Amino acid sequence: MRGAVIHAPGDVRFEERDDPKIINPTDAVIRTVATCVCGSDLWDYRGINQVTEPTPIGHEYVGIVEETGGDVTSVQPGQFVIGSFFASDNTCAHCRYGYQSSCRHREFVGGCQAELVRVPLADGTLVATPDRPTDDLVPSLLALSDVMGTGWYAAVAAEVTPGMTVAVVGDGAVGLSGVIAAKELGAERIIAMSRHTTRQKLATEFGATDIVTERGDAGVARIKELTGGVGADAVLECVGTPESTQQALRSTRPGGNVGFVGVPHGVEIDGEELFFSHVALRGGPAPVRRFLPDLINRVFEGRIDPGKVFDLTLPLDQVAEGYRAMDERRAIKTLLRP
Amino acid sequence: MRGAVIHAPGDVRFEERDDPKIINPTDAVIRTVATCVCGSDLWDYRGINQVTEPTPIGHEYVGIVEETGGDVTSVQPGQFVIGSFFASDNTCAHCRYGYQSSCRHREFVGGCQAELVRVPLADGTLVATPDRPTDDLVPSLLALSDVMGTGWYAAVAAEVTPGMTVAVVGDGAVGLSGVIAAKELGAERIIAMSRHTTRQKLATEFGATDIVTERGDAGVARIKELTGGVGADAVLECVGTPESTQQALRSTRPGGNVGFVGVPHGVEIDGEELFFSHVALRGGPAPVRRFLPDLINRVFEGRIDPGKVFDLTLPLDQVAEGYRAMDERRAIKTLLRP
Repeated sequence: MRGAVIHAPGDVRFEERDDPKIINPTDAVIRTVATCVCGSDLWDYRGINQVTEPTPIGHEYVGIVEETGGDVTSVQPGQFVIGSFFASDNTCAHCRYGYQSSCRHREFVGGCQAELVRVPLADGTLVATPDRPTDDLVPSLLALSDVMGTGWYAAVAAEVTPGMTVAVVGDGAVGLSGVIAAKELGAERIIAMSRHTTRQKLATEFGATDIVTERGDAGVARIKELTGGVGADAVLECVGTPESTQQALRSTRPGGNVGFVGVPHGVEIDGEELFFSHVALRGGPAPVRRFLPDLINRVFEGRIDPGKVFDLTLPLDQVAEGYRAMDERRAIKTLLRP
Repeated sequence: MRGAVIHAPGDVRFEERDDPKIINPTDAVIRTVATCVCGSDLWDYRGINQVTEPTPIGHEYVGIVEETGGDVTSVQPGQFVIGSFFASDNTCAHCRYGYQSSCRHREFVGGCQAELVRVPLADGTLVATPDRPTDDLVPSLLALSDVMGTGWYAAVAAEVTPGMTVAVVGDGAVGLSGVIAAKELGAERIIAMSRHTTRQKLATEFGATDIVTERGDAGVARIKELTGGVGADAVLECVGTPESTQQALRSTRPGGNVGFVGVPHGVEIDGEELFFSHVALRGGPAPVRRFLPDLINRVFEGRIDPGKVFDLTLPLDQVAEGYRAMDERRAIKTLLRP
């Protein structure tokens, strides 16, 4: 089969790879229906994360089960399935508490920008859709595999409840998904922080009521101004830099919550400032598995359409162009079809 | 009147001071029935916080209202009252959300180790007891003014709910009060981290089911061992050092919560470690005012007896000895009576 392999920063190639096989009886192999490029793939592509050897890349996928190991009982060949970037057994203590991305047996599901993908712990990881989805639902279902699940977790971690004022820091696919989540969870006012016209437009379509273009201290001041000097009840941090983290923390009212889902790069939080802010923090790699059944329903019912974050669709063999377009910010997110 | 004044590290004197007066029509002056020495007073006493000039000290008090300003309506002369170390209007947005210690008009109530105390924003700050308490209730009511309110907030911030396993880092008066709070909020298992026999004994009396004497990595390992490798559901951080904060964060299970109420001194939190831990954090100066009515009831009903944290009672004029005893760890907490 063929799949994407990153050889060095800026060098993603679509090439022949060995077909994935069932290694453990709990594995499944799926035939990819759609996959995509993640903002976090760009950390490798831009050389911020080291690439020491040619590595299959991609961790978002939907597909049809091709083959299952002998112990797999919850999915079967022919089913359309979605899974998270972290395989989880969904039975350990951490999974039972809803933190499947801290599963004691978690495995990263890599190399998904490919025609076939091996998914470990298939019973715990994969969720089959109720019916085989129509083609127009595929982008939104694919989004659940990471960005929509992550945006949802950001809102849940920030304890968004009906009537709240929510600010979203970051206008990438995760931030935009966070807007959808805040809206679905009943936020009354959703302030999207964005300075890109196309992203502002999508944020508004997803439910943002206000757009703030200022950043840093000016962004914080604007949020305070919009909230009568109080601050937002909940803030979703969807970037992961020291600046965005500080902006999120300082935009939140005392007693409010920050959900942080941007993987922190160089972030240090000052204990004394956090203390006197009275702001609560919860973050981490999203336990996407927890939310999949609910989110699949919302997509099938037509309540949410997170697939709109894909503004570029390419055949899988043009994966390199998919990376380039995102790197150059010509695309928010690239969907790839084998 | 007479009161305690700190002149320099190690130098607390009981001396003549001007009688406090009503300055604003929202003030009250109370005649102190009991006051005490706080662990945080020791930061000054030990020279960790700078003392630049002679300063009246103490911020915990219960007393009888002596006089009220013209705008005060909720308390009246003759009533027995309790207030927090932060005066608050109890009407601003932050107060209404229950974060009175972030009140927009908050004022620190200092110089309370004295015969009389001026309390600003008396309507928002002071809570009168239903009846004049008998003398044996005074220590427990005094504890509500800070340590018990703070221990309670630690447990609330850590989202303690019935059936949980709770660990408490710190065996000072706040940590011990945290044990009481965890018990009252329904924790099934309460692990007190302490290596002092008298404090272990009191923790057990207050409801601790396990005592862990190890600290740092060994303490974390012991908590993991006691919880089947999972970690505690909630951890109360009642110290404020980098070591105790790390110990708290690492003792918590993914998805669990740390309530941190020890004022952080030199604490930096690594964003990436916090992210991958899936642990939530909320801290700050306790909004004691939020909890006072409930805690007063619990004391009057005899459900809690936080006054037991006072293991030394002295006449107010021996305040200097009260500091010495705590500094030398001969006492957990000193109660002072005018």
